[in-house]
Amino acid sequence: MAKQVKSAISPTRNEDYPEWYQQIIRASDLAERSTVRGCMVIKPWGYALWENIVQAMDNLFKATGVKNAYFPLFIPLSFLEKEAEHVEGFAKECAVVTHHRLEKGDSGSLEPAGKLAEPLVVRPTSETIIGDSFSRWVSSYRDLPILINQWANVVRWEMRTRIFLRTSEFLWQEGHTAHATAEEAIERTNMMLDVYTTCVEDYLAMPVLRGRKSPAERFPGAVDTMAIEAMMQDRKALQSGTSHFLGQNFARGFDIKFQTASETEEYAWTTSWGSSTRMIGGLIMIHSDDDGLILPPRVASAHVVLLPIIRKPEDRQTVMDYTEKLARELSATQYLNRNILVEIDDREIGGARGWDWIKKGIPLRVEIGPRDIAENAVFVGRRDQAPNKKTAVKRDQFVAGITTTLDEIQQNLFQRALAFREAHTIEIDDRKTFYDFFTPQNADKPEIHGGFAISGWCGSAKCELKIKDDLAVTIRCIPFDSEAGKGRCICCGEKSESQVVFAKAY
Amino acid sequence: MAKQVKSAISPTRNEDYPEWYQQIIRASDLAERSTVRGCMVIKPWGYALWENIVQAMDNLFKATGVKNAYFPLFIPLSFLEKEAEHVEGFAKECAVVTHHRLEKGDSGSLEPAGKLAEPLVVRPTSETIIGDSFSRWVSSYRDLPILINQWANVVRWEMRTRIFLRTSEFLWQEGHTAHATAEEAIERTNMMLDVYTTCVEDYLAMPVLRGRKSPAERFPGAVDTMAIEAMMQDRKALQSGTSHFLGQNFARGFDIKFQTASETEEYAWTTSWGSSTRMIGGLIMIHSDDDGLILPPRVASAHVVLLPIIRKPEDRQTVMDYTEKLARELSATQYLNRNILVEIDDREIGGARGWDWIKKGIPLRVEIGPRDIAENAVFVGRRDQAPNKKTAVKRDQFVAGITTTLDEIQQNLFQRALAFREAHTIEIDDRKTFYDFFTPQNADKPEIHGGFAISGWCGSAKCELKIKDDLAVTIRCIPFDSEAGKGRCICCGEKSESQVVFAKAY
Repeated sequence: MAKQVKSAISPTRNEDYPEWYQQIIRASDLAERSTVRGCMVIKPWGYALWENIVQAMDNLFKATGVKNAYFPLFIPLSFLEKEAEHVEGFAKECAVVTHHRLEKGDSGSLEPAGKLAEPLVVRPTSETIIGDSFSRWVSSYRDLPILINQWANVVRWEMRTRIFLRTSEFLWQEGHTAHATAEEAIERTNMMLDVYTTCVEDYLAMPVLRGRKSPAERFPGAVDTMAIEAMMQDRKALQSGTSHFLGQNFARGFDIKFQTASETEEYAWTTSWGSSTRMIGGLIMIHSDDDGLILPPRVASAHVVLLPIIRKPEDRQTVMDYTEKLARELSATQYLNRNILVEIDDREIGGARGWDWIKKGIPLRVEIGPRDIAENAVFVGRRDQAPNKKTAVKRDQFVAGITTTLDEIQQNLFQRALAFREAHTIEIDDRKTFYDFFTPQNADKPEIHGGFAISGWCGSAKCELKIKDDLAVTIRCIPFDSEAGKGRCICCGEKSESQVVFAKAY
Repeated sequence: MAKQVKSAISPTRNEDYPEWYQQIIRASDLAERSTVRGCMVIKPWGYALWENIVQAMDNLFKATGVKNAYFPLFIPLSFLEKEAEHVEGFAKECAVVTHHRLEKGDSGSLEPAGKLAEPLVVRPTSETIIGDSFSRWVSSYRDLPILINQWANVVRWEMRTRIFLRTSEFLWQEGHTAHATAEEAIERTNMMLDVYTTCVEDYLAMPVLRGRKSPAERFPGAVDTMAIEAMMQDRKALQSGTSHFLGQNFARGFDIKFQTASETEEYAWTTSWGSSTRMIGGLIMIHSDDDGLILPPRVASAHVVLLPIIRKPEDRQTVMDYTEKLARELSATQYLNRNILVEIDDREIGGARGWDWIKKGIPLRVEIGPRDIAENAVFVGRRDQAPNKKTAVKRDQFVAGITTTLDEIQQNLFQRALAFREAHTIEIDDRKTFYDFFTPQNADKPEIHGGFAISGWCGSAKCELKIKDDLAVTIRCIPFDSEAGKGRCICCGEKSESQVVFAKAY
């Protein structure tokens, strides 16, 4: 009788996609919910992944002249109020510090004491507190541009939370720049979107669409917001980085003025751009399968696990020596800018051991038993291939070829995700087809629908809102390569301003 | 007439040490006070320094098997209360979040709204919130040890603040480990103190004394606290890293229990250890001089600045080409685990330019003019030597020797600091000498006193407190190599338990 095909993760993607996502995180040991409402604990396997993403992105930032700095966690309430749309956007969900001490109250238990004269908001984003510094740093055109990035934690008091995708506290980077001209600021806005594209496509292996947000989807306080959007395996979109041209809005609010070469005084032009641990949620949802997480090698928490197979006690010494020597050799091999990261798992738990690493998404699993050693070989499993497909490879050939193999896996993941997106993206011209496309075919699985629709839009907020109300579908972006004036608005049938990408989104 | 000798920083160390410290920070552009009370902005030159310290320390941690993770910023008040001494130590100065929204109040301005059922404390340290996770992670002896580190921001609501030394928010790392036996936990406590010693001595070039804290100076909730202490140029001590053996105190509070190999149930033994941006304050105070900051090469924000000298416009092309080629070559040179960091400063501001870099503490300044180029040479100034001492060096010789030169500077800084500490550390046996040693000789400069006194102590909190009250002098540590029972207590004259290091401290 043939062995029943069973997946390591239950439920599968098809059975229950949202629950599958939670189970992938649990099985891979990336993170866990904290006892603190809405917050997550990023466990070592998840944090190593984040460190690698940070490293890749930080190098890309620095190559464009950006320098890192650090600004206060707390924002005085009055700062937030200096830009009207900004405060409107962030006042609804923020953590407010009102006291600076704890004291025993009448009931005998500790209570907040030492009330602050002005409440402080835990930063939801730092345009205002950084604007305050910029106003001191800028006085002449010679001080510009200022190109700053901050790696930090931020807090947005979300009501419904989901690990990595939407948590009250998350980790992110936020870039903030100030320029002498609008042109230069716009150029920087676009440049940083390019950097995000490179990082997300080349490192996270996530193909993205690039474009401009509609006014309704803009960052609160921005003149223009650019974004990259990726398609998850439930065909929903995930925004994976945004870059904002802020015009002179924050410069006016914070008095960031400079003297020009011709001795007139002007407000600076600013930008901001951010990406967060949310990207990890995207990486999970775009690559993982029903056996667990799949990590793209270029950011993987580790690249290869060595699994010594010791059936008889007298083999232990030989097998472990061989394993450790191999680990040393692999660890000394460069892959991109870092060394190959090797794990050795010598637990004696039989088949469950291999599955643990499949679920953790490590790119390569290498079994080493006495027979392999006798043949100077290793037995290799790749995470982008079926779990039971393992190949005997000569040891030296494996070592010599490991970086090529890793890049092959990286490319496979990207191509697979790209093919998936292309298979579920269509141009739609008529309203009926559009509504059908976004209507789940199966009531049991409300999350499964068509995917991305490329359709005309007249540019009105009214049509945008109607589609959002009817279908929970939003304009993800107006692609940069969108053909102006092509077709008709998918909602009202009037002349289209441009084709846009409609999708359900995280 | 001889040129008047003038320092770049005013006041000098001798004139007003505390103000000199602030001026060093300002002149070097490391950081600034924020508008937010008690918080600092770490500017790019300061943050690059912090990044290098983080990198060095993180590598050392990982080499001992420690993995990074991330835990929530917020701690429920009830968590803090689970360890009696701990809450006692931290409740007095913490930021308390009581609301999760802002709303327009009757006055028309924004007010805190959405009161939380349980107030949240912004972490002053994370033993409790991490203890909560550990209780879920540990169930069997097979799960131990757990070796975790977190890089994070923490908040302690300090009343009097000073950039880097004492700010309401600061950046730090906190390690947290759990073990099956007390012995293993104590071994880890000591191991991490060794790691701090290596990092601070070998990278920050700060010689330290190592020892155990007296009970009065212990971390709230610890069984035993180990520390490293360095002497600043005003002869005061700065604690530069602490490692705590927590016994089973936090394991009891958070129910971190495990089943032993013999199937009994036991509480785990935990440790914690931390170091912070405070180290930067120490680095500034131990090395800098009256001309500005001096950065140890191994953690310097940058290693070398190239200063093209262009007196005639027609020289520009040649000089800049030569400069940029040199920069590329130096940038490709490895120093420790990273590349040499090169700055080019082509501003046309004459002599002020060189002084800017002296004040910023960069290890090497290289002037490049047409004459140098003609001789295939460069004109080099070292920050560990007098500002006006510059030497012509053949270009290729400079490139080939730069890592040796940097290490020479590194060693000089360490040796200088060590000699200073040794010159101001004495063994004192009698009370009169002890009191004189710590009494300022000049009323105008209350901060100048003897330095470190090595004296006997009977072990009583009473004597410790009397000396603290009389002289503002505390026991910095009971050195590991202290001779037990030597001499008599410097305060009461009774039998000494051990010799200890007394000092004024930051």
